[in-house]
Amino acid sequence: MPSYKLTYFDGRALGEPIRMILTYMGLEFEDNRIDMESWTALQKEIKWGRIPVLEIDGKEMYQSRAIMRYLAKQAKLAGDNDWEAYEIDCAAGTVGDLIDLYRSMWKLSDEKTKEEWEKKLLDEFIPSFMKNWDEQAKNTGFLANGKLSWADLYLHGWVETLEVLMGKEIVNEYPNLKLGREKVHATPGIKEWLAKRPKTVY
Amino acid sequence: MPSYKLTYFDGRALGEPIRMILTYMGLEFEDNRIDMESWTALQKEIKWGRIPVLEIDGKEMYQSRAIMRYLAKQAKLAGDNDWEAYEIDCAAGTVGDLIDLYRSMWKLSDEKTKEEWEKKLLDEFIPSFMKNWDEQAKNTGFLANGKLSWADLYLHGWVETLEVLMGKEIVNEYPNLKLGREKVHATPGIKEWLAKRPKTVY
Repeated sequence: MPSYKLTYFDGRALGEPIRMILTYMGLEFEDNRIDMESWTALQKEIKWGRIPVLEIDGKEMYQSRAIMRYLAKQAKLAGDNDWEAYEIDCAAGTVGDLIDLYRSMWKLSDEKTKEEWEKKLLDEFIPSFMKNWDEQAKNTGFLANGKLSWADLYLHGWVETLEVLMGKEIVNEYPNLKLGREKVHATPGIKEWLAKRPKTVY
Repeated sequence: MPSYKLTYFDGRALGEPIRMILTYMGLEFEDNRIDMESWTALQKEIKWGRIPVLEIDGKEMYQSRAIMRYLAKQAKLAGDNDWEAYEIDCAAGTVGDLIDLYRSMWKLSDEKTKEEWEKKLLDEFIPSFMKNWDEQAKNTGFLANGKLSWADLYLHGWVETLEVLMGKEIVNEYPNLKLGREKVHATPGIKEWLAKRPKTVY
């Protein structure tokens, strides 16, 4: 049995989707949560300077979507054929786009520009992505192919952090996404993880 | 034989990697290049509001990396096993990260902040990514698994635009990436495409 070690901040954000897929697969993993002080030093050592990093038997893996897709193939959450895999990749890519749009705000040093961006996120970007996802998830709650995939874990693992950071409930306004969240949270492995995971602010 | 139509701006940027993989595969495609005026109208109609969009027999595909990965599987440029596929995804993901870092500049309205960001790109981000890629491409010129993959087409299709936009030759400073570019540009299908493609500024 390989050993798994996930290094990320003490929060959900981009670490939680990977924690979810590991627990879905029933894999034990070292949940290495680092504080900002350690991060400053660690960032210089890590190739690409970004986390999450997943180590499998000490071998480092980078890029959260690449990590998830790799695990998802083993978990049978990556589609049953090339088209299904594309639909999942596409959905996950759009989640990545909204993450990037959110993170763009951090790069804005000017307070006024930052406020304008935050308003755009709340009024335009977030509703537009959520609306599209909600349509895709119609009836089943799942983003792609009408069944659970790693794209659902990616969205629902991350989106709780978005809700905290924006100070707003978001998903509950979209019935199909709400259903998807409930299904993901009730999935064996993930359900037990949610009950025992550390409580964090974001 | 399915019909392929690629809709993108009249430039290389994110469209060129897809054009390259299509020509590598020997596929004829409609190269639908739109001007900024048409884009303003089209953006509202397109799901997700972003291009490139590839249509296969009229079915729209979104997300450039998802599109490339789908085509690459058919082209045998997506790795021979799950680990190779991960290495390619990871490399392509880092290209995506640099693209995002570049595009963040567009969101900066304040001229001074924009200049600072541009300096950071030139002095920090770009050299750091290029150095890592150059190490990965050691001896073979290829980003992953020592052989041609869609990650190479993604990097080399896009990076020429980066060079134009930054007003600077970049790749030639990195011998392994330079070798990779030469190999990609000499690849049958792509070679003929480069000779006949429309000349564009960026």
